[in-house]
Amino acid sequence: MPREITAFSNPLIKRVRGLRDKRHRREERLFLAEGLRILAEAEEAGTLPEMLFFARESGDHPIVQRLSGKVERNGGEVIETSRDILHKLSGKDNPQVVLGVYRQFDTGLARIDRSAAGIWLVAQAMRDPGNLGTILRTGDAVGAGGLILIDDTVDPFSVEAVRASMGAMFTQRIAQARWDEFLPWLREGEGQLVGLSLDTSVDYRAPDYVAPTFLMVGNEAQGLPADYAAACDLRVKIPMLGKADSLNAAISCAVMAYQVLGQRID
Amino acid sequence: MPREITAFSNPLIKRVRGLRDKRHRREERLFLAEGLRILAEAEEAGTLPEMLFFARESGDHPIVQRLSGKVERNGGEVIETSRDILHKLSGKDNPQVVLGVYRQFDTGLARIDRSAAGIWLVAQAMRDPGNLGTILRTGDAVGAGGLILIDDTVDPFSVEAVRASMGAMFTQRIAQARWDEFLPWLREGEGQLVGLSLDTSVDYRAPDYVAPTFLMVGNEAQGLPADYAAACDLRVKIPMLGKADSLNAAISCAVMAYQVLGQRID
Repeated sequence: MPREITAFSNPLIKRVRGLRDKRHRREERLFLAEGLRILAEAEEAGTLPEMLFFARESGDHPIVQRLSGKVERNGGEVIETSRDILHKLSGKDNPQVVLGVYRQFDTGLARIDRSAAGIWLVAQAMRDPGNLGTILRTGDAVGAGGLILIDDTVDPFSVEAVRASMGAMFTQRIAQARWDEFLPWLREGEGQLVGLSLDTSVDYRAPDYVAPTFLMVGNEAQGLPADYAAACDLRVKIPMLGKADSLNAAISCAVMAYQVLGQRID
Repeated sequence: MPREITAFSNPLIKRVRGLRDKRHRREERLFLAEGLRILAEAEEAGTLPEMLFFARESGDHPIVQRLSGKVERNGGEVIETSRDILHKLSGKDNPQVVLGVYRQFDTGLARIDRSAAGIWLVAQAMRDPGNLGTILRTGDAVGAGGLILIDDTVDPFSVEAVRASMGAMFTQRIAQARWDEFLPWLREGEGQLVGLSLDTSVDYRAPDYVAPTFLMVGNEAQGLPADYAAACDLRVKIPMLGKADSLNAAISCAVMAYQVLGQRID
C-alpha cells in the first residue's frame, strides 16, 4: 500500500526536493524524473524508480497503478501525495502527476560498448541542460548508442536535462570522461571521430562516414578547442548562409547525425 | 552623456523589469534583449534599442561606446548602471553587461515578402520559447526568410525566445497568424506547404522541394492537427529508429530545413 504524505515539513519531501540541487544529487547518487511519459519510457527500458510519488487524484490512472505495483514488488517506496507537494518537489508551476526518484547509473567510459551502435554522440564542455537532454532525445531517434560528455559539462542528471530528454535518458548510454581519457579509449578500438568545426572546407554531406561514427560538437560558446579538432579523423562544417554564423549545439548535432543515418538507411 | 541610475527603486528600472512579463510587453510594445553579441547583431541588422543599459565597468568597451553613441544620436536613452541592477532587470544570475529595450515590430502576415527567400519556417501552437528562438537561429543559418507562428504560440518577444535566437530575432521576419488567415494568404501566391507528420510514408529526403518552401512543424506535444496536415501540399516524416518516436520540434525543423537547403546548394 502507498504511504501517504501530506505535510510539506516531512523530511522525505525535503530530501527529495534537495535533489534539484547538484550537490545533493551527487551525495545521494539519485536523480529526479517527472511525468507519466518519461516514467513509462524508463519502465519500458527496464528502469524503475526507488521512490514513486503520485498525486492523489491520479491514483486510479492505469500507468500509475502499474508503476506503483512494480515499484513495490521491486522493494521501492510508493508515496501518495498532493499536487501542492508535487509542485514543491518539481519546482514547476504545472507539476506532472508523477515523479520518480531514480538511482544514478555509472557513467564510466568502460560501460560503452562501441560495437552496439553505428552512431555515438560526443559533446564537449556542454553548458546547457536543455541541449544535453535534446541531444539524448535526438540520439534515441537516430539509433545512436549514447552520449559521451567530455570535460566539465552540465550534470546529465539535472532535472532540466532529464526533462528535455523525454525519456531518452533511460534508453541512451551516458558516459563522462576527460578528453585525455576519451581519446586513448577511442583509439583502443574502431571508431571514426568526426568533429564539427568552422575551420574546414569539408561539407558535412561530403564524407562517407564509417561506423562506429563518433560525432563531436564543442561548447555552445566556443566550439571545439583547436587541438581537439586536430585530433579528429575528420573535421566537417555545416553550411551557414546567415548573418550570425552559428547554430545551436543540439541542432548541429542533429543535422550531422541525420546525415550519417541517411547514408545508412538509404 | 549617459544618465546614471543606481537605485533599484527608480521607476524606470521597475518599468523595464516589467518587460519580462508578457502583459507589460504587450502594453508597452517593447521587449528586452541582452548581451553584446545580440545587441551588435541587432545593430548590424539596422535595429537600435530605444534604451540601452550598460554596466559601469563595461563603459569603455568599444561595442558599448559605439552603441551608446548611436542610440543617443537616434534619440534613444543610454543608462549607466550597476551589475546588480542589470541582474534585477535580466533575472539572470550572471547578467550580461548590456541590455537593450527594443520596440516590438509588426508581426502581420502582410509584412512577409515570400519571394525574398526560398525557405520559410512555420510553427503551429509552439509552446516553448527556447524552441522558438532556436528555430529563428536555424532560420538565419539556412537563409530562411523568417518564421510564421500559427495560432496561439509563446510570445516571440519573450526574454527566453530572444536569448535563444542569438540575434536572429533581428535578422528573420516574424509573423503571427491564425491558421484560417495563413492558409488563404499562402494560396494567394506561390509556395509549397510541407508539413511534418507521423502519418505519411514519405521520407523527408525524397521530395524535390519547390521554392518558396514553407516548412511547418506542429505543437511540441501534439504535432500538427490532422486537418492542417491534410491541407499541406506535401506531408513528410523524419525516420526515427528509437523507442520514443519523437524529436524536439526545433530539431525536426532544422533537419528538414537542412535537407531543403542541401538540394539548393548542391
